[in-house]
Amino acid sequence: MDPDLNAPAAAELAADDLPGGFRYAGVACGIKPSGRRDLSLILADGDVTAAGVYTQNQVVAAPVLLCRERTPSSAIRAVVVNSGNANACTGDSGRRDADQMTHWVARHAGCDRQAVLVMSTGVIGQRLPMAHVENGIQSAASSLGTDVAAFQRSADAILTTDRSRKIGATRVEVAGQEFRIAGMCKGAGMIAPNMATMLATVLTDAPLSPADAQDLLRRIANVSFNRVSVDGHTSTNDSLLLLASGRGEPLAGGALDAFAAALETLCVDLAKQLPADGEGARHVLELTVTGAASGPDAERIAREVAASPLVKTAITGGDPNWGRIVSAAGYAGPPLEIDQLALEILGTPVFASGQPVAFDAKSLSRRMQEADFVPVQLRVGNGPGEAMFWASDLTTDYVDFNSRYTT
Amino acid sequence: MDPDLNAPAAAELAADDLPGGFRYAGVACGIKPSGRRDLSLILADGDVTAAGVYTQNQVVAAPVLLCRERTPSSAIRAVVVNSGNANACTGDSGRRDADQMTHWVARHAGCDRQAVLVMSTGVIGQRLPMAHVENGIQSAASSLGTDVAAFQRSADAILTTDRSRKIGATRVEVAGQEFRIAGMCKGAGMIAPNMATMLATVLTDAPLSPADAQDLLRRIANVSFNRVSVDGHTSTNDSLLLLASGRGEPLAGGALDAFAAALETLCVDLAKQLPADGEGARHVLELTVTGAASGPDAERIAREVAASPLVKTAITGGDPNWGRIVSAAGYAGPPLEIDQLALEILGTPVFASGQPVAFDAKSLSRRMQEADFVPVQLRVGNGPGEAMFWASDLTTDYVDFNSRYTT
Repeated sequence: MDPDLNAPAAAELAADDLPGGFRYAGVACGIKPSGRRDLSLILADGDVTAAGVYTQNQVVAAPVLLCRERTPSSAIRAVVVNSGNANACTGDSGRRDADQMTHWVARHAGCDRQAVLVMSTGVIGQRLPMAHVENGIQSAASSLGTDVAAFQRSADAILTTDRSRKIGATRVEVAGQEFRIAGMCKGAGMIAPNMATMLATVLTDAPLSPADAQDLLRRIANVSFNRVSVDGHTSTNDSLLLLASGRGEPLAGGALDAFAAALETLCVDLAKQLPADGEGARHVLELTVTGAASGPDAERIAREVAASPLVKTAITGGDPNWGRIVSAAGYAGPPLEIDQLALEILGTPVFASGQPVAFDAKSLSRRMQEADFVPVQLRVGNGPGEAMFWASDLTTDYVDFNSRYTT
Repeated sequence: MDPDLNAPAAAELAADDLPGGFRYAGVACGIKPSGRRDLSLILADGDVTAAGVYTQNQVVAAPVLLCRERTPSSAIRAVVVNSGNANACTGDSGRRDADQMTHWVARHAGCDRQAVLVMSTGVIGQRLPMAHVENGIQSAASSLGTDVAAFQRSADAILTTDRSRKIGATRVEVAGQEFRIAGMCKGAGMIAPNMATMLATVLTDAPLSPADAQDLLRRIANVSFNRVSVDGHTSTNDSLLLLASGRGEPLAGGALDAFAAALETLCVDLAKQLPADGEGARHVLELTVTGAASGPDAERIAREVAASPLVKTAITGGDPNWGRIVSAAGYAGPPLEIDQLALEILGTPVFASGQPVAFDAKSLSRRMQEADFVPVQLRVGNGPGEAMFWASDLTTDYVDFNSRYTT
């Protein structure tokens, strides 16, 4: 496991952290009853490379259907996002609404609608209030800025049940040239009857070919955004976009690898912000599974352990209850070497060689309760497969929030 | 779907509801700190047919390892069960303890230890207090009875976090002969650091061959006990036993089919008592999936929908939030026919032909809140596959209970 994966990206952005070639806006246009920002626009100065990865849910929102067709591409000009309405389960009308949004943006940008991508998040099963959306796009297009404040407004306008803005930035020097990467994301779970979703946009001024961008993004999504969970409920709208504005020869070989490493670091940092702000969450379980027969086996075990309500509530209560973790690994599916099973919580061994280990439960519990991220290391055998996974704990606040009647 | 499946079995037992050939005891021997009954014994008057199905967890408790070797069998004499300690993750010593329990019972029964089965449920990772267990077996063996009160004491002694006793009985007339079937089970979830489990024993005075008994039990477990969930966490100790004391020619052909139908009805009734008494549970989601390509596809969809914390909390709050259910079906895996998707809650259509349907949300919500069992019908296409599944809702009481620090 590369320790750099967990290096934090810049929490606060400076003006020169933002990649060149993009302008940002975030406005309130009345989709959210709360009156908070609900329409976000990112406009590129010219055609940029764009790649996207989308929800695996078979029930897919209209904007996802549209974006799937338009990425990867070397000629994207804008991304428009609305929050407060997911435009999901809305049939053909919803699909026309999504396309109409890209048409309005294209008119302002002076480009073809095919050059515009769209994302939506919020209530499921309701038509978008298109008059509000049209006003919002007009207002956003006339308030675009290149400064950090504009980037932040753009990042705020994609939030739903999130408690806080989720952004990050990093730089990478490749063959004497410095490139910048910045990103924003949202997602804290789902609320009745809203269906909040994971949305993320990552921007860079590096030159990338569409094929490389798509390949990078798919690979990196698998070890970052696809490795976090609040409630295990895959939404209809999940989308991750990468826009690259760099001109000239696309990165290749070792330079592309170096860029990929920096992009991965940033994506992991952004992804970890999601469970940390999970609905009702107080702690994040940071689970590392090692010794599996393969990487996919390790991931399957990690995902199953992190999904168990009993494991989640043990993290909530700071309970070093290893029986819950070991038994969850036991039903995950991939083969375990029982006499090799070992577990460490916050670095303290509690189970080794398939047997209980004596430990100071009171002291470990105190440390678990104080930690924001609770690292748990589970060894399941002697194989080469390993995986990390980050999951919110499960609190009474989560249940309260999601069982309140709101339809 | 056979409507008889949901016919309730006798809630209160009469003396002649119990199958002949068995004696029962349930005593307190000090394994549970609470002082409640924790040792249960069922003794057959002679050799009986026995079949068993056990947890699929790879981390398997000692008593399960032992029972797996001893069933199916035509020469079982007794089942001993302790609650308060799961004898799981206890290595070779735990295995010796389980075998020792069967030895003590065999001494009282005057049979070989191979004729005794054993089940355990409770704390994981701790050795059994064997002195208490030995006293308990002695005390149980000297207090065996054939009356309903003895059966009830035996059923009480297997409970852990359960709020109530879980028993049932039914009769079936086959070729002019009446046979009785009675059963007991336990299970409400898991508590820290306990690992509660599903245990069930079903008794009958019908004559069954070991092979038929094993085949019936495996098939029926798949549509009863394997179709309920409190928290999706498969334990290390789950066990379901069938003991048949009938003499003479084993049932076959149509007679065996008729017996199987009665056994299935009883097992479904017993199984539904588990999520109804799930930790913190206020409602049970009774989910029927139809129109899948196959039965296993329908089951996989039902299991995934019923596991979603968002679906569970919607049931908790009486929220007819169909988006959560439809989207969960969408990530379950098996193919959906999107334009055939339809959903009814308590008989009210809320989604049909892949489109939202107008309904009175307030009235439906009120009915959901009042119902103990909330029937939800999900159609996913036009295939022949269907499945039922019963799951507890998710309440703040569940989270409170399981996040309280108790190690």
